[in-house]
Amino acid sequence: MFPNCIQNLINEFSKLPGIGPKAAERIVFYLLEKPKKEVKTFIQAMIEVKTKTKICRQCFNVSENELCRICSDSKRDKTIICVVENALDIIPLEKTGQFKGLYHILDGKIEPSKGITPEKLRIKELMSRVEKEKIKEVIIATNPTTEGETTALYLVRLLKPLDIKITRIGRGLPTGASLEYADETTLSSALIGRREY
Amino acid sequence: MFPNCIQNLINEFSKLPGIGPKAAERIVFYLLEKPKKEVKTFIQAMIEVKTKTKICRQCFNVSENELCRICSDSKRDKTIICVVENALDIIPLEKTGQFKGLYHILDGKIEPSKGITPEKLRIKELMSRVEKEKIKEVIIATNPTTEGETTALYLVRLLKPLDIKITRIGRGLPTGASLEYADETTLSSALIGRREY
Repeated sequence: MFPNCIQNLINEFSKLPGIGPKAAERIVFYLLEKPKKEVKTFIQAMIEVKTKTKICRQCFNVSENELCRICSDSKRDKTIICVVENALDIIPLEKTGQFKGLYHILDGKIEPSKGITPEKLRIKELMSRVEKEKIKEVIIATNPTTEGETTALYLVRLLKPLDIKITRIGRGLPTGASLEYADETTLSSALIGRREY
Repeated sequence: MFPNCIQNLINEFSKLPGIGPKAAERIVFYLLEKPKKEVKTFIQAMIEVKTKTKICRQCFNVSENELCRICSDSKRDKTIICVVENALDIIPLEKTGQFKGLYHILDGKIEPSKGITPEKLRIKELMSRVEKEKIKEVIIATNPTTEGETTALYLVRLLKPLDIKITRIGRGLPTGASLEYADETTLSSALIGRREY
């Protein structure tokens, strides 16, 4: 019912995470009505992302330069590394304004069933950073999932022999949650992670 | 924390309907990991939509040619016109496989509060199609909202003097609905629109 080019673009948008075919249709018709200039800006932004970005040689965050914005910021504490699964995990951590150290992006989590063995992650690079630089603390901020915990335990085992502080992000009830509906595992970790006043 | 080009693209995606900032972040990081070739195909699809499409001179659907696929299909019944608000409304109607006539896209609905007066819609063009061609029936398929009904009534008043059948798409309970939770207006229209066995 529509020209092929429309269907092609609907298909392309449907491939994106979180966008179903209906949402893709709405987006394409929205773009159809937008002035060419606006769509050109959009296309330009897409091209720039694919041509200008590389990976920070230290932490593996996305970057326009050799070192990312965080690694090249002189105000950051270069003795603390926070280990995360993906670059996207940096966003919520940075929003807290609580963390002033550097990051290390593993590029995933240990998942043998999907063929993701420790060698496929940037663990070797983390170890060499910790050994070469004067790192005092490594905060392991992998997700509180089975794979995230496995990865965390694996890192702890590797890091333990080095004389540094190793911590795991706190576990417990999220803000706004109610005890009544909390699951057992969350509540157990809330009890284990209790703090004295 | 990320390069400007990343933030730019996140902003561009956030402008699309149904995509919030979080979803936009996920999409941009998804695209970052995709091979350049795939993103190029995406960009190419976007360019084609903006350069190849025009509007069907008869029904105002999107088209690659003077006449859209539906208007130029010799198998369609050219004596029935189904009037819809937007081109997107054609999709669900075509999916039913029930309608074999042509369409007419109004390009909106009468909404004086937003400055959309009948003159801004393609009503004049509809009237001239009905008068010039041998149209037997006009199905008014504007949405069952206040504005959609207003537009429908406006069209009925214009079309009544011409000697053709004018119909409105059926109203009633949607498939899978339960009487218990149906609202009064829907239920009233279900009663009015009842059919004999």
